Amino acid sequence: MSAKYDLNYDLDTIRHSAAHLLAQAIIRSFPEEKVRLGIGPTIDDGFYYDIDMEHHLTEEDFPRIEKEMLAIIAEDLTITRKVLSRDDAILFFKNLGEDLKVELIEGIPAEETLTSYTQGEFTDLCRGPHVRKTSEIPSHFKILSVAGAYWRGQENQKVLQRVYATAFLSEKELQEHLKFLEEAKNRDHRKLGKELELYLMDAHAPGSPFFMPKGAIVYNELVAFIRRLYHQFDYQEVITPQVLDVELWHISGHYENFHENMFFTDIENREYALKPMNCPGHMLMFKHYKYSYRDLPLRFADFGRIHRYEKSGTLSGLTRVRTFSQDDGHIFLSLDMIQQEISELISMYFMCYRHFQFMDVKVNLSTRPQKRMGEESSWDLAEEALRKALVENKCDYQLNPGDGAFYGPKIDFKVADALKREYQLGTIQLDFQLPERFDLKFVNAKGELERPIVIHRALLGSIERFFGIYLEHVGGAFPFWIAPEQAVVVPVKSDAKTQLDYAYKIYHQLKSAGYRVRVDARNESMNLKTRQVQTAKIPFMLVVGDREVGNSGVSVRRYGSKSSENMTFNGLTELFADLMKEKNPAERIYKENNKENHQANHQEEIVL
Amino acid sequence: MSAKYDLNYDLDTIRHSAAHLLAQAIIRSFPEEKVRLGIGPTIDDGFYYDIDMEHHLTEEDFPRIEKEMLAIIAEDLTITRKVLSRDDAILFFKNLGEDLKVELIEGIPAEETLTSYTQGEFTDLCRGPHVRKTSEIPSHFKILSVAGAYWRGQENQKVLQRVYATAFLSEKELQEHLKFLEEAKNRDHRKLGKELELYLMDAHAPGSPFFMPKGAIVYNELVAFIRRLYHQFDYQEVITPQVLDVELWHISGHYENFHENMFFTDIENREYALKPMNCPGHMLMFKHYKYSYRDLPLRFADFGRIHRYEKSGTLSGLTRVRTFSQDDGHIFLSLDMIQQEISELISMYFMCYRHFQFMDVKVNLSTRPQKRMGEESSWDLAEEALRKALVENKCDYQLNPGDGAFYGPKIDFKVADALKREYQLGTIQLDFQLPERFDLKFVNAKGELERPIVIHRALLGSIERFFGIYLEHVGGAFPFWIAPEQAVVVPVKSDAKTQLDYAYKIYHQLKSAGYRVRVDARNESMNLKTRQVQTAKIPFMLVVGDREVGNSGVSVRRYGSKSSENMTFNGLTELFADLMKEKNPAERIYKENNKENHQANHQEEIVL
Repeated sequence: MSAKYDLNYDLDTIRHSAAHLLAQAIIRSFPEEKVRLGIGPTIDDGFYYDIDMEHHLTEEDFPRIEKEMLAIIAEDLTITRKVLSRDDAILFFKNLGEDLKVELIEGIPAEETLTSYTQGEFTDLCRGPHVRKTSEIPSHFKILSVAGAYWRGQENQKVLQRVYATAFLSEKELQEHLKFLEEAKNRDHRKLGKELELYLMDAHAPGSPFFMPKGAIVYNELVAFIRRLYHQFDYQEVITPQVLDVELWHISGHYENFHENMFFTDIENREYALKPMNCPGHMLMFKHYKYSYRDLPLRFADFGRIHRYEKSGTLSGLTRVRTFSQDDGHIFLSLDMIQQEISELISMYFMCYRHFQFMDVKVNLSTRPQKRMGEESSWDLAEEALRKALVENKCDYQLNPGDGAFYGPKIDFKVADALKREYQLGTIQLDFQLPERFDLKFVNAKGELERPIVIHRALLGSIERFFGIYLEHVGGAFPFWIAPEQAVVVPVKSDAKTQLDYAYKIYHQLKSAGYRVRVDARNESMNLKTRQVQTAKIPFMLVVGDREVGNSGVSVRRYGSKSSENMTFNGLTELFADLMKEKNPAERIYKENNKENHQANHQEEIVL
Repeated sequence: MSAKYDLNYDLDTIRHSAAHLLAQAIIRSFPEEKVRLGIGPTIDDGFYYDIDMEHHLTEEDFPRIEKEMLAIIAEDLTITRKVLSRDDAILFFKNLGEDLKVELIEGIPAEETLTSYTQGEFTDLCRGPHVRKTSEIPSHFKILSVAGAYWRGQENQKVLQRVYATAFLSEKELQEHLKFLEEAKNRDHRKLGKELELYLMDAHAPGSPFFMPKGAIVYNELVAFIRRLYHQFDYQEVITPQVLDVELWHISGHYENFHENMFFTDIENREYALKPMNCPGHMLMFKHYKYSYRDLPLRFADFGRIHRYEKSGTLSGLTRVRTFSQDDGHIFLSLDMIQQEISELISMYFMCYRHFQFMDVKVNLSTRPQKRMGEESSWDLAEEALRKALVENKCDYQLNPGDGAFYGPKIDFKVADALKREYQLGTIQLDFQLPERFDLKFVNAKGELERPIVIHRALLGSIERFFGIYLEHVGGAFPFWIAPEQAVVVPVKSDAKTQLDYAYKIYHQLKSAGYRVRVDARNESMNLKTRQVQTAKIPFMLVVGDREVGNSGVSVRRYGSKSSENMTFNGLTELFADLMKEKNPAERIYKENNKENHQANHQEEIVL
């Protein structure tokens, strides 16, 4: 960091000043254009300026504007602040032809002080603060992109050009950030989803992905993995209807509270809704049987498809959709079972996230809010149980007092991906309310009817959204067990019958062992085929030439590797079998006092 | 068959006369009642009579009525036919107070001859023919049940009592039929579904089953089995949206032709429909990419949930529902690929049905109807290809000329279940139309754009319906690989710690090997536990007492067996592993000339 920035300006001030620099440079770069300015705030990782001009800015304009920004820095213009009366401000910007600024002023409450900042010929309406002269703005900035944006965010307003840029205190930080952006762009799941033929979108179903064959494999493997976890942790999967009478949604409270996000349909003069959540269905199922304490905790899991309305403008890739499935589950239990169950859940969650190589997991505990339902003693017990379970699992957690839902406390899990971006994935939400609304009861040990508590829980959350996050996390290079195509067999000479025969022999063997494999027997160069296998990020390319035919071997090239290794076919199948073990979650460790599995000490192999 | 029935009467005439016998006996059995008669036709396996009377008939009334029927036979009444003018007929039945008969007469076209049949005091309006005297009616009849039925089948009409009965030419046939009915009742999937806790129905979602944990296991195993078949036969599963713009349903023609059975919803002022079929989604996906002849046949598979409106009155168990999934698939191919593909399909279908022990499979081929689309030469080629494929597979098939759809010929498959009841399951439907409607094209070997043909195909059809049929086929006793619970471990003394520990040891071993197993450690008698395992039709009960603890063994009792066998635990796991192999479909036999798999001769193990 050079000396001239040692001025105690924080990054936000620097970026604020850089935004003015950008606006001034744009005006200067297009002297023939009438440029009108909107707003130019800082955002996470940078800033933008909304402008209105005839010329459509493109990436080709960026160098010229950046050069002008550097020139303004070199001019070392003094930046002066001025307090303006409302009338003066309006008059001033009206004279400049800055109608948008006039609109902004008119929208600012009367009691607020208006200030402007001037550098050379450029004056902007601004709260500040700013640096004192343009030479104090570091030259470590970069214009990134331009996009359309409604003026004031309203769809009935004019579309302005939003110029995104960033600035840092050091060149190193800037370069690191640009590298991050480049990497994020390359990993963008919408881009990868298209390139790897994982899914597509169609105007006939907005926000509703069509998973192509390769995407469907990944999707189904995600579900299969969660099912294996469920088998270990004693969940019981159920399959439930999607279209349910609104009467049910009145009972559950969704009709009143979630109506805006639901789709409705009519059947025989009754109103039905497409389910936006699975919970009410599970409540019905619980109510249908007379469960006893011996049956609890009862864990229903459901991969049912749900539908939620989102405005078409907000839809994006797999992360903001109108239809998705969750690895959803509801646990019915009594108050005294909470700690044990939460403890099991926490270890299950960590087991899951680690399996997908999300190693940095943050946990939040949100406790009773001001407005809440349920007895105080229940909240005491529940919160204490959650806390103890977190401690028991040696979980560093952040406490968010008052942040729980009105119907119960909750734990949520955030993971950081390969680019250190954080995403909230799983939640564990206690619910005192739904069992009330559905009047659920179980027979307790004393033979009395008791109200159960419900835990809503999902590890991945929306599978569609997790798909998108995970795709970016692995940058499209899926691990072997989940890769849509696991290997491609390539004969060196596609016209050599012995090689071709041998390639198919290998193909059949691997396929009948369950692997996802194909032969690339096209009459194309080995170079092209290799490049295509790399681009498709397929874990293994298996090359077979005369030598391999001769020694029943295979030349194995792993994804990302520049070189090949020779293996026997037996060696290869052993390697594959070994890699496939990664589809299994880690072995569950039974905790002591686990009611159902109190013989935890019998995990060792039976020797006979 | 006794001598007196050697009269050349067919079974239908006998049952017709038995229906009169039934009506006469009911009138005689309730002398105080005003009994009015509706209609009394023969049906498959019997006959019924609709009657209107105050008293609600129950099973308790049946013996008395049957006794009266026997009495009338013994009376040896002559049955006389009489031709009536319309006026005479109306007058006659009006005088009898038989208003329903009067209504019937008024509905009969003027040119039809009216006849009545009289036996003793009883006269019925009837076309005949009948036996000549009541003594010619065999006494091998049985009243079966009574149910409500709208007069003339119209919901705005009175509900009559429909008395079901049957009659046969010999006592042996009657008894066989009654045994069949008893067995069918015991196997009724609605009854078994409840008893075995497989699924439940709730008024909030008519016609929409909730699969409970045990049902969901069976359901998912069915899907998993079909997926294994798909892996062998090179299908590519896709996952597609459920809510699609009506514009799409206009293109596909469903809006015009299937509107009555569809559910609609509104999004942002556009009309959308819940998909009643998967095809249009697959057409969109095909259209999205530029496929070449090398990619064909392209086989999309989809287990997507679909919704179809059915009147609430017609809904029944799992066989008539409003929402279900299919093992649906669409194959895109060129005309010259049809024979090869159909041939593969036929072997796949047989492989599938045999796997579920449906050994009696009937095949129908339906060819071009009068009204049809597509070129005559295409029909010639397609029908010839279908025929050749059937012959190639040594398939006895029935030809139904003219029974194909207007858009293509089809093959369908009927299977007979354990009670020899026939169900249509799979279809293979060629479609010349959808590719037209969606303007689909692929690049052929000459580099030209060519219109593909689409094959709609499903093996099981609706998975819900197949679930119901299969449940009845196996009578609730599922084979090991698909059984919801595969084994229960029962300690002889649930309070003996060593036994309990050993039971859990076995449980953990089996569970971590993936089996669905539990311990029954309740303090209940071995008799009760055994009975419950039998009632739940669980394939294995594994009893462990001191002897088993001592020798690391297990006492194994199979479902349906009266005795147990002693095994080592190793022996048991070998047995289980062996049984689990049944989850795999038979190994596919590659036919010659199979484009993709022309190295069919390389199915043998690679020896290295």
